[in-house]
Amino acid sequence: MNDVVAALANAIGAQYVIDDPAAMAPYLTDWRGRYTGRAIAVVRPGSTQETADIVRICASANVPMVPQGGNTGLCGGATPLPDGGSVLVSMARMHRIRTVDAANNALVAEAGCTLAAVQQAAEGGDRLFPLSLASEGSCLVGGNISTNAGGVQVLRYGNMRDLVLGVEVVLPDGRVWNGLRSLRKDNTGYDLKQLFIGAEGTLGIVTAAALKLFPRPRARATAWVAVPDPRAAVDLLSLLRDRCGERATAFELVGRSALDLVLQHIPAMRAPLAGVHDWHVLVELADALDGEALDDMLERTIAAAIDSGLAVDAAVASSIAQAHALWALRENISEAQKIEGISIKHDISVPVSAIPDFLLQAQQALAAIWPDVRIVTFGHLGDGNLHYNLSKPGAVDNAEFVARTRDVNRIVHDLVGALNGSISAEHGIGQLKREENARYKSEVELDLMRAVKRALDPHGLMNPGKVI
Amino acid sequence: MNDVVAALANAIGAQYVIDDPAAMAPYLTDWRGRYTGRAIAVVRPGSTQETADIVRICASANVPMVPQGGNTGLCGGATPLPDGGSVLVSMARMHRIRTVDAANNALVAEAGCTLAAVQQAAEGGDRLFPLSLASEGSCLVGGNISTNAGGVQVLRYGNMRDLVLGVEVVLPDGRVWNGLRSLRKDNTGYDLKQLFIGAEGTLGIVTAAALKLFPRPRARATAWVAVPDPRAAVDLLSLLRDRCGERATAFELVGRSALDLVLQHIPAMRAPLAGVHDWHVLVELADALDGEALDDMLERTIAAAIDSGLAVDAAVASSIAQAHALWALRENISEAQKIEGISIKHDISVPVSAIPDFLLQAQQALAAIWPDVRIVTFGHLGDGNLHYNLSKPGAVDNAEFVARTRDVNRIVHDLVGALNGSISAEHGIGQLKREENARYKSEVELDLMRAVKRALDPHGLMNPGKVI
Repeated sequence: MNDVVAALANAIGAQYVIDDPAAMAPYLTDWRGRYTGRAIAVVRPGSTQETADIVRICASANVPMVPQGGNTGLCGGATPLPDGGSVLVSMARMHRIRTVDAANNALVAEAGCTLAAVQQAAEGGDRLFPLSLASEGSCLVGGNISTNAGGVQVLRYGNMRDLVLGVEVVLPDGRVWNGLRSLRKDNTGYDLKQLFIGAEGTLGIVTAAALKLFPRPRARATAWVAVPDPRAAVDLLSLLRDRCGERATAFELVGRSALDLVLQHIPAMRAPLAGVHDWHVLVELADALDGEALDDMLERTIAAAIDSGLAVDAAVASSIAQAHALWALRENISEAQKIEGISIKHDISVPVSAIPDFLLQAQQALAAIWPDVRIVTFGHLGDGNLHYNLSKPGAVDNAEFVARTRDVNRIVHDLVGALNGSISAEHGIGQLKREENARYKSEVELDLMRAVKRALDPHGLMNPGKVI
Repeated sequence: MNDVVAALANAIGAQYVIDDPAAMAPYLTDWRGRYTGRAIAVVRPGSTQETADIVRICASANVPMVPQGGNTGLCGGATPLPDGGSVLVSMARMHRIRTVDAANNALVAEAGCTLAAVQQAAEGGDRLFPLSLASEGSCLVGGNISTNAGGVQVLRYGNMRDLVLGVEVVLPDGRVWNGLRSLRKDNTGYDLKQLFIGAEGTLGIVTAAALKLFPRPRARATAWVAVPDPRAAVDLLSLLRDRCGERATAFELVGRSALDLVLQHIPAMRAPLAGVHDWHVLVELADALDGEALDDMLERTIAAAIDSGLAVDAAVASSIAQAHALWALRENISEAQKIEGISIKHDISVPVSAIPDFLLQAQQALAAIWPDVRIVTFGHLGDGNLHYNLSKPGAVDNAEFVARTRDVNRIVHDLVGALNGSISAEHGIGQLKREENARYKSEVELDLMRAVKRALDPHGLMNPGKVI
């Protein structure tokens, strides 16, 4: 292995090849602290050519590689296995915005740009890059691509996959594929970029991407709406899209227990409505129109919803500060739940129309085996994507709670499967859900995935032990 | 081969296995009449199971298969090779709409549904399925998926790829992959459906798909705008998106020669503007708002464009009939050009910002070798996609004109390549552009395509001689 480390240092400079255990440590444990791996070295290429050199050196020595972006993933996909046989390739030094082409509504960013830097580059060209996540200040765009990141504006703009026009990739044999086309239409064969989006680095290393830009909205309108039940929330979404068309950019469900945790644990949070309600929706519209027209449209839509029983009360933000305060209630749920104690988390999706059935059936099935469990539900209802978490009941100790994870997963994921849903809507598979995923995919689909993996990475060198 | 035909007849019924040459003929020549192939038989499965039976029978006899939808493709992708060794699989009998789920904004259609039938099913659920093409009454949705169809609303809604949530596919070994999930978010491994979209039947046979629906626009506003040059057209697109946001659904460029051909050859067509202009744009907005507000927005935007020199004159449709009349000018260009005589056609895309350079450089390069050639330009400027056609000069005979195709392609496609564009924006590769495509793709990209093909269709049985 000393030969490999020496060859890597020779290729990209010794200062960018880290093999001191203390210096490697931050790269070897995932953000949630669930996984800690080991590595031969951490290498930090500064260019596509250097990334290709690294891959060629590792491939010829049969050394596996683990690509890593901002190390903010939730499934351990960027953490090496404990065997210590891999080289970790951190893409953080490749952080150039190569081009911004406002007239083509596209920019080209290197994999190591933070999502926030990409958003800012788009704003510099008077455009919007719409992907928006809690970790946007530290996650890297290469990781966003490799995990097909989602977030709070998918309803209007789609997932990361929908925002990628082209990619540059170092293949597992060290060759560079320049697929950096910034075209809206290109039907010249298989759309190879799709293979690398969402592949979590198991098929190659994304080094740069051409990304779609959009007109910057001039106005936003935001409201917190209490709804009688999840079925009404789904109907409210239909009403909203019917009346406001594609202006609807966010439609987030917040269950009562989720709001209660935020109000209890996060300083300076205030209940947005006077009464107590079991279910809420955070709605946002955005448009090129001026703000008053948009507020008016939202208010009239909510009034119609109240008239027809789809909503029971609502607060429409009358200032940007108020809109931020409403969003803070939504964005602090994960933090509040962490303060409350440990929880069993799920990141599921089902067809939007099946959300009410999912919630009812999951609650009944869980209550049957565990009467005092607390279900904390929130998420992107507009995308059919819920974060469906169980908080530990006070009377149960941590170990006992964790021991029930498998039983709980079986109930939740079996139900998701029966509703033709997904057990990982936006977080990916990584190490965390690899076995669970194999349980729910058909043998045909697993075979296809294995065939793709073999075709692109026949020696299994890219991010082993992840996804498949 | 008699054994194969007998086995097919046994599997799906003799009445759905055609081997009489006269009855097979309509399936064996493409819509443009460029390609005529031969086949062992034409088979017409009525279900996914029957399709799988066909594929299993053919695969075990090592007989290649050619999937065909509405036979409206422009590149010979659905026409068998002249060797006569294939079975043609027509999907037209599988024309059920399986489900419409308005609350989930999705429907499931079988591959043999016409695009128009899918549009109608969406309307029946008060939703829009936005794909829109000239051939929508006869093209089949399986073909739309397999060619990643484009059309006139891509600017706002994307290509067919963007509209597919899931697919059901019969794989080359006869196994069925049920990937019919109707989810907005699903990150459970490689997004396998992407492989089959745009693959032109070379990796398997798409039998059904889950498709995205959208709110139905309540209002449209349409205008015909004369612009001084293509650069102004690109700037007008930016202005339009800046002022009208995502309401812009179509932005079609029409060159003077294209309009002249329509006015000359198509009955009842009238020039929309009093003066004569070299370049025009057909603009359409759509929205959930009422129509007056939208017309007003479009008129104010065009007035600003005229003030700043981006437009010189315009006609805004004041009725649906007027809007249809404007669209008829655009939609009759191909027909008018056919009446005029033979032409050399290109379906290219470049970044939108590079359109003016492309037009200028292509015109100069063509004029240098062929001073009297007539260039007929029109297409989806909003997507960077032009149909860039050369009409035969009167003094040249047909054979001499056709003989120059290769030289002309080299000029046009070399320029497209230099601008990092695509030589087939929306029509695909089929037989027509297979060699041309191999010329412009990098060796790395061709290798990746071959690796994918080998992984999914190791015996090369699916639509041989197409795409790669």
